[in-house]
Amino acid sequence: MWQIVGLHHVAFAHASGDVTAQALEELLGLVVSHEEKGPGFMERMIPVAGDCYVQLLEATDDGVVDRFVSRKGAALHHLALEVTDVDAAVADLKAKGANLVDEEPRLGGMETRIAFLHPSNFGGLLVELIQRI
Amino acid sequence: MWQIVGLHHVAFAHASGDVTAQALEELLGLVVSHEEKGPGFMERMIPVAGDCYVQLLEATDDGVVDRFVSRKGAALHHLALEVTDVDAAVADLKAKGANLVDEEPRLGGMETRIAFLHPSNFGGLLVELIQRI
Repeated sequence: MWQIVGLHHVAFAHASGDVTAQALEELLGLVVSHEEKGPGFMERMIPVAGDCYVQLLEATDDGVVDRFVSRKGAALHHLALEVTDVDAAVADLKAKGANLVDEEPRLGGMETRIAFLHPSNFGGLLVELIQRI
Repeated sequence: MWQIVGLHHVAFAHASGDVTAQALEELLGLVVSHEEKGPGFMERMIPVAGDCYVQLLEATDDGVVDRFVSRKGAALHHLALEVTDVDAAVADLKAKGANLVDEEPRLGGMETRIAFLHPSNFGGLLVELIQRI
Protein backbone atom coordinates (compact mmCIF):
# COMPACT_ATOMS: atom_id res chain seq x y z
CA MET A 1 0.00 0.00 0.00
CA TRP A 2 1.00 3.59 -0.60
CA GLN A 3 -0.12 6.86 0.91
CA ILE A 4 0.06 10.55 0.15
CA VAL A 5 1.93 12.19 3.02
CA GLY A 6 1.82 15.82 1.93
CA LEU A 7 2.21 18.48 -0.70
CA HIS A 8 5.92 18.45 -1.55
CA HIS A 9 6.08 21.42 -3.91
CA VAL A 10 4.25 23.62 -6.34
CA ALA A 11 6.16 24.53 -9.48
CA PHE A 12 6.16 27.85 -11.35
CA ALA A 13 7.69 27.95 -14.83
CA HIS A 14 9.15 31.13 -16.25
CA ALA A 15 11.44 32.46 -18.96
CA SER A 16 15.12 33.20 -18.53
CA GLY A 17 16.12 35.23 -15.47
CA ASP A 18 15.61 35.06 -11.73
CA VAL A 19 13.15 37.90 -11.19
CA THR A 20 10.75 35.62 -9.34
CA ALA A 21 13.36 34.20 -6.98
CA GLN A 22 14.70 37.69 -6.25
CA ALA A 23 11.26 39.11 -5.53
CA LEU A 24 10.25 36.18 -3.31
CA GLU A 25 13.37 36.86 -1.26
CA GLU A 26 13.12 40.65 -1.15
CA LEU A 27 9.41 40.88 -0.43
CA LEU A 28 8.66 37.66 1.44
CA GLY A 29 12.01 36.53 2.82
CA LEU A 30 11.80 33.21 0.97
CA VAL A 31 15.27 32.03 -0.03
CA VAL A 32 16.44 29.49 -2.60
CA SER A 33 18.04 26.54 -0.79
CA HIS A 34 18.91 24.37 -3.77
CA GLU A 35 19.63 24.85 -7.48
CA GLU A 36 19.97 22.09 -10.00
CA LYS A 37 20.15 21.93 -13.79
CA GLY A 38 17.64 19.81 -15.66
CA PRO A 39 17.24 19.22 -19.40
CA GLY A 40 16.56 22.73 -20.75
CA PHE A 41 15.84 24.29 -17.37
CA MET A 42 17.28 25.46 -14.07
CA GLU A 43 15.34 24.28 -11.05
CA ARG A 44 15.35 26.36 -7.87
CA MET A 45 13.82 25.04 -4.66
CA ILE A 46 12.56 27.52 -2.08
CA PRO A 47 11.51 26.05 1.25
CA VAL A 48 8.33 27.42 2.76
CA ALA A 49 8.23 26.79 6.52
CA GLY A 50 7.53 23.12 7.01
CA ASP A 51 8.47 20.49 4.53
CA CYS A 52 7.06 22.19 1.49
CA TYR A 53 8.73 24.01 -1.39
CA VAL A 54 7.99 26.50 -4.12
CA GLN A 55 9.89 25.22 -7.15
CA LEU A 56 10.93 27.66 -9.83
CA LEU A 57 11.61 26.22 -13.27
CA GLU A 58 13.58 28.65 -15.41
CA ALA A 59 13.61 27.84 -19.13
CA THR A 60 17.25 27.96 -20.19
CA ASP A 61 17.08 26.01 -23.46
CA ASP A 62 14.69 24.02 -25.61
CA GLY A 63 12.63 21.54 -23.66
CA VAL A 64 9.37 21.00 -21.81
CA VAL A 65 9.69 24.12 -19.66
CA ASP A 66 10.48 26.39 -22.61
CA ARG A 67 7.58 24.92 -24.59
CA PHE A 68 5.22 25.48 -21.68
CA VAL A 69 6.36 29.08 -21.17
CA SER A 70 6.20 29.82 -24.92
CA ARG A 71 2.61 28.60 -24.97
CA LYS A 72 1.30 29.92 -21.66
CA GLY A 73 3.71 32.57 -20.45
CA ALA A 74 5.12 32.44 -16.92
CA ALA A 75 2.65 30.29 -15.00
CA LEU A 76 2.21 27.68 -12.32
CA HIS A 77 3.13 24.37 -13.92
CA HIS A 78 2.33 21.44 -11.62
CA LEU A 79 1.94 20.31 -8.06
CA ALA A 80 3.86 17.46 -6.48
CA LEU A 81 2.36 15.12 -3.90
CA GLU A 82 4.76 13.30 -1.64
CA VAL A 83 4.02 9.59 -1.42
CA THR A 84 5.40 6.81 0.73
CA ASP A 85 6.10 4.47 -2.21
CA VAL A 86 6.13 5.84 -5.75
CA ASP A 87 6.53 2.38 -7.34
CA ALA A 88 3.44 1.07 -5.58
CA ALA A 89 1.56 4.25 -6.47
CA VAL A 90 2.43 3.98 -10.17
CA ALA A 91 1.53 0.27 -10.26
CA ASP A 92 -1.78 1.00 -8.57
CA LEU A 93 -2.60 3.90 -10.90
CA LYS A 94 -1.74 1.81 -13.96
CA ALA A 95 -4.12 -0.87 -12.71
CA LYS A 96 -6.80 1.81 -12.32
CA GLY A 97 -6.29 2.86 -15.94
CA ALA A 98 -4.70 6.24 -15.20
CA ASN A 99 -2.80 7.94 -18.01
CA LEU A 100 0.86 8.20 -16.93
CA VAL A 101 3.50 10.52 -18.33
CA ASP A 102 6.16 8.33 -16.69
CA GLU A 103 5.33 4.64 -17.00
CA GLU A 104 8.10 3.95 -14.51
CA PRO A 105 9.34 6.24 -11.72
CA ARG A 106 12.59 8.06 -12.48
CA LEU A 107 15.13 10.07 -10.53
CA GLY A 108 14.15 13.63 -9.60
CA GLY A 109 16.16 16.43 -7.99
CA MET A 110 17.25 16.47 -4.33
CA GLU A 111 17.35 12.71 -3.93
CA THR A 112 13.86 11.84 -4.96
CA ARG A 113 12.09 9.46 -7.29
CA ILE A 114 9.23 10.89 -9.28
CA ALA A 115 6.48 10.08 -11.75
CA PHE A 116 4.18 12.51 -13.54
CA LEU A 117 0.51 11.72 -14.07
CA HIS A 118 -0.99 13.11 -17.27
CA PRO A 119 -3.15 16.22 -16.86
CA SER A 120 -5.91 14.45 -18.81
CA ASN A 121 -6.63 12.42 -15.67
CA PHE A 122 -7.52 15.50 -13.67
CA GLY A 123 -9.22 17.88 -16.08
CA GLY A 124 -5.99 19.64 -16.99
CA LEU A 125 -4.07 19.50 -13.69
CA LEU A 126 -0.52 18.14 -13.97
CA VAL A 127 0.30 16.09 -10.86
CA GLU A 128 3.71 14.70 -9.92
CA LEU A 129 4.17 11.94 -7.39
CA ILE A 130 7.44 12.20 -5.48
CA GLN A 131 9.18 10.00 -2.95
CA ARG A 132 12.20 11.05 -0.92
CA ILE A 133 14.98 8.45 -1.03
CA MET B 1 6.51 41.30 12.94
CA TRP B 2 4.95 38.69 10.70
CA GLN B 3 6.14 35.35 9.46
CA ILE B 4 5.29 32.85 6.78
CA VAL B 5 4.36 29.61 8.53
CA GLY B 6 3.63 27.37 5.56
CA LEU B 7 2.02 26.78 2.20
CA HIS B 8 -1.72 26.87 2.93
CA HIS B 9 -3.05 25.88 -0.50
CA VAL B 10 -2.49 25.81 -4.20
CA ALA B 11 -5.47 26.71 -6.35
CA PHE B 12 -6.54 25.20 -9.66
CA ALA B 13 -9.20 27.00 -11.70
CA HIS B 14 -11.44 25.13 -14.11
CA ALA B 15 -14.69 25.40 -16.04
CA SER B 16 -18.05 24.10 -14.89
CA GLY B 17 -18.15 20.53 -13.54
CA ASP B 18 -16.34 18.54 -10.89
CA VAL B 19 -14.21 16.24 -13.05
CA THR B 20 -11.04 17.25 -11.20
CA ALA B 21 -12.45 16.66 -7.73
CA GLN B 22 -13.86 13.29 -8.80
CA ALA B 23 -10.59 12.14 -10.34
CA LEU B 24 -8.52 13.28 -7.36
CA GLU B 25 -10.77 11.14 -5.17
CA GLU B 26 -10.97 8.10 -7.43
CA LEU B 27 -7.29 7.94 -8.36
CA LEU B 28 -5.55 9.48 -5.37
CA GLY B 29 -8.03 9.13 -2.51
CA LEU B 30 -8.08 12.91 -1.94
CA VAL B 31 -11.50 14.01 -0.74
CA VAL B 32 -13.20 17.43 -0.69
CA SER B 33 -13.68 18.50 2.94
CA HIS B 34 -15.28 21.88 2.40
CA GLU B 35 -17.31 23.62 -0.31
CA GLU B 36 -18.19 27.28 -0.37
CA LYS B 37 -19.68 29.64 -2.96
CA GLY B 38 -17.74 32.74 -3.94
CA PRO B 39 -18.63 35.47 -6.44
CA GLY B 40 -18.90 33.56 -9.73
CA PHE B 41 -17.24 30.40 -8.48
CA MET B 42 -17.56 27.35 -6.28
CA GLU B 43 -14.53 26.72 -4.07
CA ARG B 44 -13.66 23.17 -3.01
CA MET B 45 -10.95 22.51 -0.44
CA ILE B 46 -9.16 19.16 -0.50
CA PRO B 47 -6.84 18.47 2.40
CA VAL B 48 -3.51 16.88 1.56
CA ALA B 49 -2.02 15.17 4.61
CA GLY B 50 -0.75 17.88 6.91
CA ASP B 51 -2.20 21.34 7.03
CA CYS B 52 -2.16 21.94 3.30
CA TYR B 53 -4.94 22.01 0.73
CA VAL B 54 -5.53 21.73 -2.98
CA GLN B 55 -8.19 24.33 -3.73
CA LEU B 56 -10.42 23.85 -6.76
CA LEU B 57 -12.08 26.95 -8.16
CA GLU B 58 -14.96 26.06 -10.46
CA ALA B 59 -16.20 28.90 -12.65
CA THR B 60 -19.98 29.00 -12.20
CA ASP B 61 -20.76 32.50 -13.47
CA ASP B 62 -19.03 35.69 -14.67
CA GLY B 63 -16.12 36.72 -12.49
CA VAL B 64 -12.38 36.45 -12.00
CA VAL B 65 -12.31 32.65 -12.20
CA ASP B 66 -14.36 32.52 -15.39
CA ARG B 67 -12.20 35.23 -16.99
CA PHE B 68 -9.03 33.32 -16.04
CA VAL B 69 -10.35 30.02 -17.42
CA SER B 70 -11.62 31.68 -20.61
CA ARG B 71 -8.16 33.13 -21.20
CA LYS B 72 -5.93 30.26 -20.06
CA GLY B 73 -8.06 27.14 -19.90
CA ALA B 74 -8.10 24.97 -16.79
CA ALA B 75 -4.87 25.84 -15.00
CA LEU B 76 -3.20 26.37 -11.67
CA HIS B 77 -4.22 29.84 -10.53
CA HIS B 78 -2.31 30.92 -7.40
CA LEU B 79 -0.54 29.74 -4.29
CA ALA B 80 -1.41 30.82 -0.79
CA LEU B 81 1.17 31.33 1.92
CA GLU B 82 -0.05 31.15 5.49
CA VAL B 83 1.17 34.06 7.60
CA THR B 84 0.98 34.83 11.30
CA ASP B 85 -0.42 38.34 10.80
CA VAL B 86 -1.86 39.36 7.46
CA ASP B 87 -2.37 43.00 8.50
CA ALA B 88 1.28 43.37 9.45
CA ALA B 89 2.33 41.60 6.25
CA VAL B 90 0.25 43.91 4.05
CA ALA B 91 1.50 47.02 5.88
CA ASP B 92 5.08 45.83 5.50
CA LEU B 93 4.66 45.02 1.80
CA LYS B 94 3.04 48.40 1.14
CA ALA B 95 6.01 50.09 2.79
CA LYS B 96 8.31 48.05 0.55
CA GLY B 97 6.41 49.29 -2.52
CA ALA B 98 4.81 45.97 -3.45
CA ASN B 99 1.84 46.05 -5.80
CA LEU B 100 -1.19 44.77 -3.89
CA VAL B 101 -4.44 43.42 -5.35
CA ASP B 102 -6.04 43.87 -1.92
CA GLU B 103 -4.94 47.10 -0.25
CA GLU B 104 -6.56 45.82 2.95
CA PRO B 105 -6.98 42.19 4.03
CA ARG B 106 -10.49 40.80 3.56
CA LEU B 107 -12.42 37.74 4.69
CA GLY B 108 -11.60 34.49 2.88
CA GLY B 109 -13.27 31.09 3.08
CA MET B 110 -12.97 28.74 6.07
CA GLU B 111 -12.47 31.48 8.66
CA THR B 112 -9.46 33.19 7.19
CA ARG B 113 -8.35 36.69 6.30
CA ILE B 114 -6.58 37.06 3.01
CA ALA B 115 -4.81 39.51 0.72
CA PHE B 116 -3.61 38.92 -2.82
CA LEU B 117 -0.29 40.30 -4.05
CA HIS B 118 -0.21 41.29 -7.70
CA PRO B 119 1.57 38.83 -10.03
CA SER B 120 3.64 41.74 -11.36
CA ASN B 121 5.68 41.57 -8.13
CA PHE B 122 6.83 38.04 -8.85
CA GLY B 123 7.27 37.79 -12.60
CA GLY B 124 3.73 36.52 -13.14
CA LEU B 125 3.14 34.46 -10.00
CA LEU B 126 -0.10 35.27 -8.15
CA VAL B 127 0.49 34.96 -4.39
CA GLU B 128 -2.17 35.09 -1.69
CA LEU B 129 -1.36 35.71 1.95
CA ILE B 130 -3.75 33.98 4.34
CA GLN B 131 -4.20 34.01 8.09
CA ARG B 132 -6.42 31.61 10.01
CA ILE B 133 -8.71 33.44 12.45
